[in-house]
Amino acid sequence: MNNLPTVGFIGLGLMGQAMATNLLNAGFPLHIYSRSKHRAKTLINDGASWHNSPAEMAKNLAADIIVICVTDGPALQDVVAGEQGLIKHLAPNTLVIDMGTSPFDLTQTLAKQVTAVGGQYLDAPVSGGQKGALEATLSVMVGGAEEPLTRAMPAFNAMAARVTHVGPMGCGQLAKTANQMIVGTTVGIVAEALFLAQQAGAEPERVRAALMGGFADSKILQIHGQRMIDEAFSPGARATTQLKDMQQASSLAQQQEVNLPLLSRSTAQWQAMVEAGQGELDQAGYLAWVKKLNQQ
Amino acid sequence: MNNLPTVGFIGLGLMGQAMATNLLNAGFPLHIYSRSKHRAKTLINDGASWHNSPAEMAKNLAADIIVICVTDGPALQDVVAGEQGLIKHLAPNTLVIDMGTSPFDLTQTLAKQVTAVGGQYLDAPVSGGQKGALEATLSVMVGGAEEPLTRAMPAFNAMAARVTHVGPMGCGQLAKTANQMIVGTTVGIVAEALFLAQQAGAEPERVRAALMGGFADSKILQIHGQRMIDEAFSPGARATTQLKDMQQASSLAQQQEVNLPLLSRSTAQWQAMVEAGQGELDQAGYLAWVKKLNQQ
Repeated sequence: MNNLPTVGFIGLGLMGQAMATNLLNAGFPLHIYSRSKHRAKTLINDGASWHNSPAEMAKNLAADIIVICVTDGPALQDVVAGEQGLIKHLAPNTLVIDMGTSPFDLTQTLAKQVTAVGGQYLDAPVSGGQKGALEATLSVMVGGAEEPLTRAMPAFNAMAARVTHVGPMGCGQLAKTANQMIVGTTVGIVAEALFLAQQAGAEPERVRAALMGGFADSKILQIHGQRMIDEAFSPGARATTQLKDMQQASSLAQQQEVNLPLLSRSTAQWQAMVEAGQGELDQAGYLAWVKKLNQQ
Repeated sequence: MNNLPTVGFIGLGLMGQAMATNLLNAGFPLHIYSRSKHRAKTLINDGASWHNSPAEMAKNLAADIIVICVTDGPALQDVVAGEQGLIKHLAPNTLVIDMGTSPFDLTQTLAKQVTAVGGQYLDAPVSGGQKGALEATLSVMVGGAEEPLTRAMPAFNAMAARVTHVGPMGCGQLAKTANQMIVGTTVGIVAEALFLAQQAGAEPERVRAALMGGFADSKILQIHGQRMIDEAFSPGARATTQLKDMQQASSLAQQQEVNLPLLSRSTAQWQAMVEAGQGELDQAGYLAWVKKLNQQ
């Protein structure tokens, strides 16, 4: 017996499956729901309880924690406030935690709807990718109040290596937006830089080696730079997902009425890459897009 | 007495003074020339020999090493091949090392002119900024042959912590170009990201903290990100210099006939920042430009 709260987990994609498995392995009684039940098989075999909808899950979890990790805004909207959404049967004081990358304005709306029925809400998107999810070394960026964050910490600690309380509701998503803007644009310029150096006669591998440790060094140069050199473009994180995140960032900039020229150009480039049929490549496949753009 | 070669050093700007001082402190017999003699005072007092022109320096240094660290391409052209340039009186086997950030095509031209009069040439631009120059922790990216690089190593070791042989002639400049493209664009997107998060209601300091260690982490987020939060915009490395480097990268892309959309947009933004009168700010002052662009 342990005193860990029961956790409901919604969304069993690449990230979600790994995160839910870590919760189960850490001893949390686990309830699960996903659009595709076949993804739940291993977790069910290992002791997780299946539900046929978010509403059904909410009905069965009294005042516990429900983690959501779904693909995009519309999916999140559906899980929380849709026909079979959580708020249909949410018990008062249930803590709903969105760990996906979701639009700032939708976060505000859903948080209000959840608190209106007596629940609590945290936005807690993660960074670290599938590797971080598998190894429970994710970074969590949290927006919301202190008390629900304290409640969530044991569950976060089972999935993540680092938790940062960024600020009030929505601030986790703002940090994630900043993260994705920087990631998407850095991947792009690293690809352009290695491509240009190669065109002019240098070996990209030696250029990358020369840059490591200097001002151009970054996690992207280290990890995605190496993938570019190896032409290892199977995901990982897909270009389509990066585009979705860049578009969310661009929408936020529009809502805030700010002009961000690099974000605009970078978003347009990820869109062009996806439109060119390379959306299923890893982010590092941006190099393949630069080559295609230059007809090679 | 020591067996260190005599070193001539041309160009005593912020970087050059620090690098020349490190050579002198390491025991190299040092000869110096700079457009402004007043910058040479301390070095002369400490034992360096002054020359009134590059040509005069070349005449006095027989088959030794001459390091050049000047502002830009035209200055380099003048020092090497101008009316009072090095090649007027260069002794055979003198090793000329350009440690500035110079255009790839000019590098090829000057290297040919130097070797035509019996000298050797290395392009060896550095990364690490004034801090790296002062602390002798620069990274050197070298293009050229093995033998002159071996000759140069004792001098490099007095100024730098890391030396990477990138490839044949010009490849040091190609690596530096890649470095500057990545630095300029990463600074820009970090500024845009922190600005957007702040506009939407998050504290930039906590956003930066949440991003550290994740995929968005970089030397730029660590160093320039902190400067942005502190609004510490006195240089350091000036926006005008960053613009010059972005323009050199764009010229190279044009010469190579490659289309690099992020480089184009980023170069245009640095130009707009300089035209808006903010060229004397540190690179991190790009945030001030983003604010100005959004009329705050």
